[in-house]
Amino acid sequence: MSTYEDLMGFTRETQALAQVAGRLDWDQETMMPRGAAPQRGEEAAAMASVLHARRIDPKVGAWLAALDGVELDETAAAQLRHIRRSYDRTSKVPAKLAARIARVTSEGQGIWAEARRTEDVALFLPVLKEIIALRVEEAQALSGGGPLYDALLDDYEPGTTGPELEMMFGALRPELANLRAAALEAPAPPELTGHFDDALQMTLTRTLAERFGYDLQHGRVDKAVHPFSSGSGLDVRITTRTNPTDPFNCFYSTIHEVGHATYEQNISRDYLLTPLGQGVSMGVHESQSRIYENQIGRSRAFTGWLYGQMRDTFGDFGIADEEAFYACVNRVSDGFIRTEADELQYNLHVLLRFDLERALISGDLAVDDLEAAWNDRFAADFGFAVDKPSNGVLQDVHWSVGLFGYFPTYSLGNVYAGCLKEAMRAAVPDLDGALAEGNTAPATNWLRDTVQTHGGLYEARDLITRACGAEPSEAPLLAYLKEKFGVIYNL
Amino acid sequence: MSTYEDLMGFTRETQALAQVAGRLDWDQETMMPRGAAPQRGEEAAAMASVLHARRIDPKVGAWLAALDGVELDETAAAQLRHIRRSYDRTSKVPAKLAARIARVTSEGQGIWAEARRTEDVALFLPVLKEIIALRVEEAQALSGGGPLYDALLDDYEPGTTGPELEMMFGALRPELANLRAAALEAPAPPELTGHFDDALQMTLTRTLAERFGYDLQHGRVDKAVHPFSSGSGLDVRITTRTNPTDPFNCFYSTIHEVGHATYEQNISRDYLLTPLGQGVSMGVHESQSRIYENQIGRSRAFTGWLYGQMRDTFGDFGIADEEAFYACVNRVSDGFIRTEADELQYNLHVLLRFDLERALISGDLAVDDLEAAWNDRFAADFGFAVDKPSNGVLQDVHWSVGLFGYFPTYSLGNVYAGCLKEAMRAAVPDLDGALAEGNTAPATNWLRDTVQTHGGLYEARDLITRACGAEPSEAPLLAYLKEKFGVIYNL
Repeated sequence: MSTYEDLMGFTRETQALAQVAGRLDWDQETMMPRGAAPQRGEEAAAMASVLHARRIDPKVGAWLAALDGVELDETAAAQLRHIRRSYDRTSKVPAKLAARIARVTSEGQGIWAEARRTEDVALFLPVLKEIIALRVEEAQALSGGGPLYDALLDDYEPGTTGPELEMMFGALRPELANLRAAALEAPAPPELTGHFDDALQMTLTRTLAERFGYDLQHGRVDKAVHPFSSGSGLDVRITTRTNPTDPFNCFYSTIHEVGHATYEQNISRDYLLTPLGQGVSMGVHESQSRIYENQIGRSRAFTGWLYGQMRDTFGDFGIADEEAFYACVNRVSDGFIRTEADELQYNLHVLLRFDLERALISGDLAVDDLEAAWNDRFAADFGFAVDKPSNGVLQDVHWSVGLFGYFPTYSLGNVYAGCLKEAMRAAVPDLDGALAEGNTAPATNWLRDTVQTHGGLYEARDLITRACGAEPSEAPLLAYLKEKFGVIYNL
Repeated sequence: MSTYEDLMGFTRETQALAQVAGRLDWDQETMMPRGAAPQRGEEAAAMASVLHARRIDPKVGAWLAALDGVELDETAAAQLRHIRRSYDRTSKVPAKLAARIARVTSEGQGIWAEARRTEDVALFLPVLKEIIALRVEEAQALSGGGPLYDALLDDYEPGTTGPELEMMFGALRPELANLRAAALEAPAPPELTGHFDDALQMTLTRTLAERFGYDLQHGRVDKAVHPFSSGSGLDVRITTRTNPTDPFNCFYSTIHEVGHATYEQNISRDYLLTPLGQGVSMGVHESQSRIYENQIGRSRAFTGWLYGQMRDTFGDFGIADEEAFYACVNRVSDGFIRTEADELQYNLHVLLRFDLERALISGDLAVDDLEAAWNDRFAADFGFAVDKPSNGVLQDVHWSVGLFGYFPTYSLGNVYAGCLKEAMRAAVPDLDGALAEGNTAPATNWLRDTVQTHGGLYEARDLITRACGAEPSEAPLLAYLKEKFGVIYNL
């Protein structure tokens, strides 16, 4: 077993270094003095280069070869599966190509930000073309002749394929579009108005974080421009933001990030600083953040408790009762922006991107035609026209940093959350009774024990199937959304 | 020149990684959640291991060999001198010994903390013996038959020797002891009483930091248990602390750390992320922190301005006028603790440690006799007895983490500060006029241009000689202290 232990010792050190690199990113978004940016760029590049060298280290290849065919227990076999996948993927991409992708995507983000600021799509297209060409080249190196898009998807959601997602999402899209139209035709719920003190928002946000099981002995809450969760194991930090007229933004960003963060915190400590010691895929990660945020956090029962908390914190804020508050939290309204979309419309935004990016990678859609394709699709699904690029094709950073195959994991996470919510309702008695008292433990403990604790032990799809007792499908999500918004909007 | 560029490219990446490791330490003292400590230990160890491997990388040896005898300009020659010194030192210490030192000193700190907490010297002695034996073994590997203590000193103050310091410090000790006794016999200046709001202390501390030229675009101020400065180049952060009854602790800790931090910030940007891009030695570093803190910050002129600031901030705090405030800031009183000592007595504390640690390394003093030796020496220099180990031999962390040869750099820094202050007074017209208005720019700009900007270009002693136009000596420090405390205490 000494070969396995040597490999794991080396891997553990690599994992520790990856945590350091992640902490550096956290620092950059929260603490770093502005003027440090150029130096930080070199520091981050040096860490990336160390990590890359370790991931393709010939020692790893030799250890893997020596362990080929050796019988291992379930845990060791799973560790090896992750290490082999990472080694194979990293080794297949020529160093020169990897370096070019790193350089071009680093430039791409700056160009995209400038293009978005000046509403100038043409400024962004040349670098986008280059990014797509490079990622296609990478996908060719990775795919072994298989579908290019699946090779990219594999970075974020190993084991899932484009056609599988296409089938799920294809079933969702018309139903969501219909539900959306119906809700927008019905009388609108009340809107939140008034001013909500920043410090009080942060106090209540910390209460919410702890209510959802976030462990502040192994984490911390700071403010950042974009909320995120960072780190694994014993040090998992989140950020949130405040907006004086929109406290829901703060509260539900926090609950969302707490979903990500408690997933990392609740992974079995046996897996600390190993490949199993992290969330298994982006889709499963998003399932945790979304089920915390939506199926639990925006439920009738929990919003009842939150209404009382908000009254205690802010006094009368103009919403008459729990029912009105529930409708207000789940208000459906027109909007251009994915990240601001409500639970009902969110997946329509993602599906748009999924379809367009597959067409970009396959070459069916030329980059020059992207804006028109975006605007046509948006008008078809949302019934009104994009008014400017920053509200359309330039709104997301993802493509500018080379993230192709990432968007669908958002909706896959929602699909998984739908499945998990159905299974949880069946397994946990009187969930709503607890939620109505602000007690999320029955829900979050069930998620901890069926999903989170396993870390990377099972493949994503397998993990969800084990937790739910059934193969994942879009049906539970759809049924849940129809039922929920049917009640709120009297459909 | 391509060999030189290859070497510098590799070195630059190493420097960037060293900055990351430093940032990790900063995070640990300021931001890290408590429960993260075990994981952080592994992260820091992984970074240390990466850095160690790069410092003894055979590539570096080959580049250095290829550059041997090649003519280089002054800057490149200085870069090479630093790289060669680091490579030679790191390579001379067997990997096994380095690993044992790392392990034992890491244990040592915990044992020391427990011994200090329980006032149990015997608990600490076994690990201290081991640490000394290991560092002696290291010194033997490094010294090439020369003096062992100098080999250790070389880690912190390259180019300075034990006998040189012995001569300087030997001249200081009796004079300081006499001055101390005289001051303590004279009527005592007023003491600060009352309560000083924490938030107001932090506001004034930020003002002070900026007044001393600290650039908050490339730094930040946080609270920590022990004040420190961290980082080089474009990201140099400081910490301070507050004590409701002792605002001077906050203000002068801040000014001290700002001295360290502006030194790093003011090094020529041409040297960013190279061996020249850092303070050249611990002694020179301490000269900057001490001249900011004492010769400038505790001067009659500057304290006059500070008195007004404190009145504006806290209202009447019981000190009648600027003269009384100046005496109060520079009050000499009995105390056991080095870090709390006033400017007059501080070096007596350091000299005690310098003499004892040289005797420990040479074997003239047995570890079992250390406490008695400490207590005897303390009684001789300070005229009263140590009451408990935490006020005596267990008060400092240094030896428990293997720092032998470090203490004297504190007093060397004070000696250098004395020299620099004399030269600065001669070079800068109406320094006191500016300081009386809270304007430190004439002083700090002179230090920037004569000392700080050069980074590691010159050896420490050479740098001070160039700045002052004379070889360093203890005489200016002594003359300054005699004059200053002579006035305050009417001696």
